[in-house]
Amino acid sequence: MAAFAQRMKTMEGTAAIIRGLFGTMNDPGVISFGGGAPAREALPVDLVREIANDVIRIDSRGVEALQYGSVPGLPDLREAVSTVLLAPKGVTADPSNILITSGGLEGINLLCQLFIDPGDVILVESPTFVHCVEIFEMFQARCVSVAMDDSGMVPEDLEEKIKRHSPKMAYLIPTFHNPTGRTLSLERRERIAGIGSAHDVIILEDDPYRDIRYSGVDLPPIKSFDKTGHTVLASSFSKIFSPGSRLGYVFASDEISSKLLDAKTATNSHTSMLPQVICAEFFKRGYYPSHHDRICGLYRERRDVMIDSIDRFFPEGTERVFPDGGLFTWATLPCGIDTTELLAESLANPDVRVAFVAGEGFFIEGGGMGRDSMRISFGSVPPEKIRVGAERLGRLILGKLG
Amino acid sequence: MAAFAQRMKTMEGTAAIIRGLFGTMNDPGVISFGGGAPAREALPVDLVREIANDVIRIDSRGVEALQYGSVPGLPDLREAVSTVLLAPKGVTADPSNILITSGGLEGINLLCQLFIDPGDVILVESPTFVHCVEIFEMFQARCVSVAMDDSGMVPEDLEEKIKRHSPKMAYLIPTFHNPTGRTLSLERRERIAGIGSAHDVIILEDDPYRDIRYSGVDLPPIKSFDKTGHTVLASSFSKIFSPGSRLGYVFASDEISSKLLDAKTATNSHTSMLPQVICAEFFKRGYYPSHHDRICGLYRERRDVMIDSIDRFFPEGTERVFPDGGLFTWATLPCGIDTTELLAESLANPDVRVAFVAGEGFFIEGGGMGRDSMRISFGSVPPEKIRVGAERLGRLILGKLG
Repeated sequence: MAAFAQRMKTMEGTAAIIRGLFGTMNDPGVISFGGGAPAREALPVDLVREIANDVIRIDSRGVEALQYGSVPGLPDLREAVSTVLLAPKGVTADPSNILITSGGLEGINLLCQLFIDPGDVILVESPTFVHCVEIFEMFQARCVSVAMDDSGMVPEDLEEKIKRHSPKMAYLIPTFHNPTGRTLSLERRERIAGIGSAHDVIILEDDPYRDIRYSGVDLPPIKSFDKTGHTVLASSFSKIFSPGSRLGYVFASDEISSKLLDAKTATNSHTSMLPQVICAEFFKRGYYPSHHDRICGLYRERRDVMIDSIDRFFPEGTERVFPDGGLFTWATLPCGIDTTELLAESLANPDVRVAFVAGEGFFIEGGGMGRDSMRISFGSVPPEKIRVGAERLGRLILGKLG
Repeated sequence: MAAFAQRMKTMEGTAAIIRGLFGTMNDPGVISFGGGAPAREALPVDLVREIANDVIRIDSRGVEALQYGSVPGLPDLREAVSTVLLAPKGVTADPSNILITSGGLEGINLLCQLFIDPGDVILVESPTFVHCVEIFEMFQARCVSVAMDDSGMVPEDLEEKIKRHSPKMAYLIPTFHNPTGRTLSLERRERIAGIGSAHDVIILEDDPYRDIRYSGVDLPPIKSFDKTGHTVLASSFSKIFSPGSRLGYVFASDEISSKLLDAKTATNSHTSMLPQVICAEFFKRGYYPSHHDRICGLYRERRDVMIDSIDRFFPEGTERVFPDGGLFTWATLPCGIDTTELLAESLANPDVRVAFVAGEGFFIEGGGMGRDSMRISFGSVPPEKIRVGAERLGRLILGKLG
């Protein structure tokens, strides 16, 4: 059989890890803190039905929704990104510099098309979002990790790694980080934008959780501090509207935006029109603010129940992140408990059966990093189940401590 | 500014050609035989509205349409591809070997991810579909052309070019070819499948027009003759359902299908669910056969009017293809008339203003190939306008002959 391209070998390992991490998550007998999907109660099903019924009509929006569209995306949706999502966050974005992508991850893929030759270095947080590592490996990049603390990526280590590895790009999720739930501080946001400009490194700011803030003070994106065009903002409608719609966007400088159109054309011509038309109308009708309030309230309650349950049921010495938004927290267990083993025991034990994602897979360094940690997703689990699941898991951990 | 990847330079030329070829096509004062879009009358707007209204309901399909989906695509839609689209054409396809893509072009992109390293050779028809050349150049492939005649790609030249260039892949549109409207003969289909197997070359069969046949005898896809898994069938719902939905599919061997899932994951996770749910329901409710009959009737009439008008109004010595399906014909003018100049004159002359695509851009060889030819699209133009446009264009050409 004809040989596969080199990139397929490079990405094999991570692809297998991802299948392992997320593979067994849909068993209805399991309480799952594993997947990162939004709550089904957070999906605007009724609104979408109403809008679809209104807009799909002969000779008007219906044809627009079904006929070929333009490469950069529907003008109304790019306008909504600019005025509703970015302007209130302190980012001035001309809609002509916004590209609508087929989900947030496609933005990451397209940026790699633009910038990554085989062997180029991409700096990532430690831990980082493994799905993006899979993309980076498909482009045969070499990933190098940068230290994180409770305030996000550490700028000193970023500069140090830039000097040592001459990377093309630094990838980070600054707000309600996946997998840890941490948020990059204001001061570091400004500093990291400056580091990108000073060292000619693309700062790829992946910010899909930013709009799901339900406590604390809003922070401007890194992009708002960018003076040279080195920061590129990629985000998604998955958490604020619907993940299945596969809608995301990239906001970048003129030069990068224009190249992105070539890469998008050669990927899939343009993003599906029907979801774009419906999502644009969702914003145009002013449905977003009240929908946003409703889902933030829903996630706030789940976060509160999860944090309270961890504090109550997990053993003393457990460290956990208190996230001001998003869908995840990150717990580190005492006494070096191995979370990969814990997960296997939890799923095998009929009195527990609680899933989470073991921490190890999020560290590109290997060597046991994150072996005592776990990503705990509370977004898609109803509060009463969160309490039950955390209690069962806590009991299992306490049992292991003897 | 950080340097772009090498691939962005490789694709620059073709990207500019495509912008030039298709850029000025939406002027309402122009009768356009240029674009390749389906007729707006062929879009199932009413059916989509009815289905959308029925299926987007809380706690059932609505959540399915808005929540994350699976990488390979909606099972119902893969089943429809297998039973409704492929089985009647003589292709036995297990749905587990079908991947739903974001439009037909994404299938081409994903196959390149799987097989193309920089410098690999891809054989293409002469002329060929330039959008795919843009994709091939993004993957830094070297395209080499294979001769075509009225029966499609010439197998002898294919074998000759395989021996000379050791290609990874041969790309062809065997049915109602873009840009020429030609169809590969039955005998050549079987031979080309065998050549792929014998020489260990992937035969990428791009077949988006196959189902729009309105005269002549149906032919089985090349894939139906494939005994070794070397042929991969990529197709699209753009011409039979809706292009804006960006739905396509790839049918491939077990080994290739499984790798395609990795590449799809690292491109955009999965194809948008809402269009998948609606399109699957369109097949499930049995709407496809009558919709198909209706649009084939519509295109048959347009083809007949276009061929008749060319024969009547274009000068003696004009050669044109009589297509049994699809949206295009291809005309070659006598006396070496330059169609790029003709197009400029046509658009500048207020008594003409008829657009088409000049032939030159479809030949990767350069050197004036196709300079006297033109792609004439009749799919999206109502019959009365086809006649008026062809008459005006014929008059302009006759005037140039003096």
